[in-house]
Amino acid sequence: MNDHLAATPIRSATARDRTTLRLRASCDDGPGIVAAISSALAELGANIRESSQFSTDPRGGRFFLRLVVDVPTGEADRARERMGEIAGDLKMDHQIWPAHRRKRMAVLCSRGDHCVLDLLWRTRNADLEADIPVVISNHDRLRDQVEHFGVPFVHIPASPADREKSEAAILDALREADVDFVVLARYMQILTDGFLERVGVPVINIHHSLLPAFVGAQPYRRAYERGVKVIGATAHYATPELDAGPIIAQDVEQVGHTDNAAALQKRGKDIEREVLARAVALHIEDRVQVHENRTIIHV
Amino acid sequence: MNDHLAATPIRSATARDRTTLRLRASCDDGPGIVAAISSALAELGANIRESSQFSTDPRGGRFFLRLVVDVPTGEADRARERMGEIAGDLKMDHQIWPAHRRKRMAVLCSRGDHCVLDLLWRTRNADLEADIPVVISNHDRLRDQVEHFGVPFVHIPASPADREKSEAAILDALREADVDFVVLARYMQILTDGFLERVGVPVINIHHSLLPAFVGAQPYRRAYERGVKVIGATAHYATPELDAGPIIAQDVEQVGHTDNAAALQKRGKDIEREVLARAVALHIEDRVQVHENRTIIHV
Amino acid sequence: MNDHLAATPIRSATARDRTTLRLRASCDDGPGIVAAISSALAELGANIRESSQFSTDPRGGRFFLRLVVDVPTGEADRARERMGEIAGDLKMDHQIWPAHRRKRMAVLCSRGDHCVLDLLWRTRNADLEADIPVVISNHDRLRDQVEHFGVPFVHIPASPADREKSEAAILDALREADVDFVVLARYMQILTDGFLERVGVPVINIHHSLLPAFVGAQPYRRAYERGVKVIGATAHYATPELDAGPIIAQDVEQVGHTDNAAALQKRGKDIEREVLARAVALHIEDRVQVHENRTIIHV
Amino acid sequence: MNDHLAATPIRSATARDRTTLRLRASCDDGPGIVAAISSALAELGANIRESSQFSTDPRGGRFFLRLVVDVPTGEADRARERMGEIAGDLKMDHQIWPAHRRKRMAVLCSRGDHCVLDLLWRTRNADLEADIPVVISNHDRLRDQVEHFGVPFVHIPASPADREKSEAAILDALREADVDFVVLARYMQILTDGFLERVGVPVINIHHSLLPAFVGAQPYRRAYERGVKVIGATAHYATPELDAGPIIAQDVEQVGHTDNAAALQKRGKDIEREVLARAVALHIEDRVQVHENRTIIHV
Repeated sequence: MNDHLAATPIRSATARDRTTLRLRASCDDGPGIVAAISSALAELGANIRESSQFSTDPRGGRFFLRLVVDVPTGEADRARERMGEIAGDLKMDHQIWPAHRRKRMAVLCSRGDHCVLDLLWRTRNADLEADIPVVISNHDRLRDQVEHFGVPFVHIPASPADREKSEAAILDALREADVDFVVLARYMQILTDGFLERVGVPVINIHHSLLPAFVGAQPYRRAYERGVKVIGATAHYATPELDAGPIIAQDVEQVGHTDNAAALQKRGKDIEREVLARAVALHIEDRVQVHENRTIIHV
Repeated sequence: MNDHLAATPIRSATARDRTTLRLRASCDDGPGIVAAISSALAELGANIRESSQFSTDPRGGRFFLRLVVDVPTGEADRARERMGEIAGDLKMDHQIWPAHRRKRMAVLCSRGDHCVLDLLWRTRNADLEADIPVVISNHDRLRDQVEHFGVPFVHIPASPADREKSEAAILDALREADVDFVVLARYMQILTDGFLERVGVPVINIHHSLLPAFVGAQPYRRAYERGVKVIGATAHYATPELDAGPIIAQDVEQVGHTDNAAALQKRGKDIEREVLARAVALHIEDRVQVHENRTIIHV
Repeated sequence: MNDHLAATPIRSATARDRTTLRLRASCDDGPGIVAAISSALAELGANIRESSQFSTDPRGGRFFLRLVVDVPTGEADRARERMGEIAGDLKMDHQIWPAHRRKRMAVLCSRGDHCVLDLLWRTRNADLEADIPVVISNHDRLRDQVEHFGVPFVHIPASPADREKSEAAILDALREADVDFVVLARYMQILTDGFLERVGVPVINIHHSLLPAFVGAQPYRRAYERGVKVIGATAHYATPELDAGPIIAQDVEQVGHTDNAAALQKRGKDIEREVLARAVALHIEDRVQVHENRTIIHV
Repeated sequence: MNDHLAATPIRSATARDRTTLRLRASCDDGPGIVAAISSALAELGANIRESSQFSTDPRGGRFFLRLVVDVPTGEADRARERMGEIAGDLKMDHQIWPAHRRKRMAVLCSRGDHCVLDLLWRTRNADLEADIPVVISNHDRLRDQVEHFGVPFVHIPASPADREKSEAAILDALREADVDFVVLARYMQILTDGFLERVGVPVINIHHSLLPAFVGAQPYRRAYERGVKVIGATAHYATPELDAGPIIAQDVEQVGHTDNAAALQKRGKDIEREVLARAVALHIEDRVQVHENRTIIHV
């Protein structure tokens, strides 16, 4: 949808002349929000390519918006400025991300390879439009596999006794790699609240159960013991409370009495890697907003 | 999202003061479409509650829009007028439906009860916000069950030899019931092109296969003979070409070698009635637009 | 598979000459169990139509077996006798159910109609091969709908203050209806341990969450508050501990941020009725065995 | 389930003393089949660990059986002999496979990496209990990735003009690698009937549609053009008729109007690799039997 002024000769604009921006915004619902934003964009000759909105309640609720906008490249800075002004007027939280800037994702893993390899495959094939500048692990086991993708592998052993030291080393590695977000790809260490405070970027975790069932350790064993007929995986933003952060994606598989705990673990791998990839894709395309520990997913 | 003029004191407007309209529109993509529509609505003090858009191609494609708008009741006629003017300017197809007006749905069925009973249950419970003023069948078998819902049942026998006569009777019954759309709820007669031309309202059909597989008769038997491991059902708008109309919804179930044709038929019932109900819900909420024999589904 | 003595001229045996028995058995795994059973059946000229077995561990575990056997009608009593003898020898629990005997199922419900109507509809159509001699409810709301199926409806009001009296009335109604099992089809009262002890037949409950998540009241509200992306339903045998009995069947649906608690409740109905119907079908075909609070499902 | 003679002291038999055999058999249904087999096995002191059977019709149909049997290692040859004798008596097709013998699987691929890498990864992790002695491709693109798994990569260019020569080269490579079956992991060349006749081992293909829909080329493009709401993948045994062989496994994913042909292709990759892996697992565990172009899947 091209939502700029009628006078603008759209056909003459080539892709090279235009910068695509992704805008996420949220504010108290009320009069004129979309009008203010779309008019300002139209004045700059911008096209709205995608638009998705949600209100918790049209009367007195919270309003959420995601736009993908093609802006004449020369007006991109001005577009940011205008959005900042509108955000100030409307007491609106907002983020703008240029679509051409690939997000930098650090992956933390342990011994299990299925999630980290899957992310490496997908980024290599551009099925995930992101870069992985570093993989960090508390085991050295996957070094060769990761490095074969041309990705630096950092081994930072973890011991409960010296958590602070290892977390400091991880934070150093993340800073050096200059990452935009972190993925815990079956990283089998619990990170401290302090780590989450200091890391400064979103952290996505994959938990191998259908939360809120089986929070914590050994979910497959506990699923087997409870005799469930469905197992699942949950990708969520990590928060200080264990496995309680905002859920981004979940999926499931039917299982049966012949599946013991080891079989569940094996079958769960496929769900885990797909749910994690789905959550990462949503995150890197700026499709996720968080409200009261729930996510709004703009699709 | 309240997208009206800032001066309008929204808190004083009660639900009674407001009329909710659903707008569907499509036109060639180009500059200023949303701006034109949203500005006009804002000037009338309207709130945009829901918004969904799609473009087949931001440069030179076709643009599709669904809005749900709260308009001050006194301005509802003016809103329709303004939308008509904009549609004229933009060479835009558009439909406006007041949300409080429940659509009237005729259901055609044969011997099988699962789809028609399910629609009757869902409308009685307001899980489907529609009315069923008439059920028409080529068999008298379900009369008692249908009438127990307080719904008139019309028996119009069908014979290949006298198709025109029975179709004329059906058309009469539909006109008398003043319906907005027709649902073929496992109606086991093929309707002629002439019928579809004259009926004048959308016709939704449920086909008991995952189209385009198994077009035509006995899909479960043919699915069994092919040895498929997945069966499905397809709800689509009926068009002159058999089972080739725009698909609204599809769903599937895993099956196995122990399921013979009769077992597939039995298991398929659950999928059929759910896919049909999903399609009917999308239709009555004006969430479907058709483009080049495909549907855009606004969710 | 016809597993009787070679001398028996199978082609001459008509269906009328034969009685189909369903055998479930469990015992400590060890040598000769199937040999003993199948030889005894072969000596009586019986055909094994279906066979399913499971061992928790071939060395020292528990063995579970389900057979469907065609026995010459004149030998049916002898077959029961022989199975009893073998069970004594092997310290084997076993049950034999004649396939032609339809199980009698009582349905308990409250205000919600979707589960009870679905069971009534499936039994009427022989999609569930069972009889419903009575529906009991703590509300009178569904009387007309139930009675239209020709099924007696008993209204037994429930109040927390006089639970014993209402449970006694339910037990009387169940005894009078001579039922083989009880289905709690969204019966919104918690039954006491005493009730479960005295009822003397299996009780199947449908819980509107994916257990063990959201045990207890208002699972849809809590699912909404947690922000899950998947909801589900669980059919299980009722045990004294709330929502903790052996799980028979579970299924799920993807949901999103636009689904509030009411929307989840509405969407959950379809899952509930299908999961419950699936569990009831497994139960009436004697496909379920229970071991350490888990079910073995013979399919 | 231990189904040997009572006199055999099972506890003294250690795993080392025993050989596990997988038996598949099929014959016309009739009296005494299981009795004959199980008695013979019992006499040799064998334990039946798993048993699955299916009859197309207990009266006059075809009977299918899969057993997993622990045989005292010294009796393994005798067990094979006895099964051969019984097969002769009953005009029974049968195959016996020692469970400890890992099947050798050749993988043929083209440019797409998702299926072949997934199979390599699963075999390396023993999630698939098979060996891949060779990967053959008509492109050299994936050499480095395949060889990193320690697997030989053979590049055999394909041109429509010289099909015979390239197929002869493939057959040579397969013979040299001494494979038990072949997997076409998105191998984008059509193999001739002559190839399938001469290859002499089962060939599993993954087709990127839900067969029988979209046989042949460009299924995702055609799925997009038809406007389907569900896409899928099908793993089947290759036969001379294109995409018409017995189906082993299928699975699906919901799609929408925003998914163009390229998006369907990208989303389909996950289904393809999982359906293929599932089919390969069933094949290597000898769980598949073929009857009249349909598969019996013993689970």
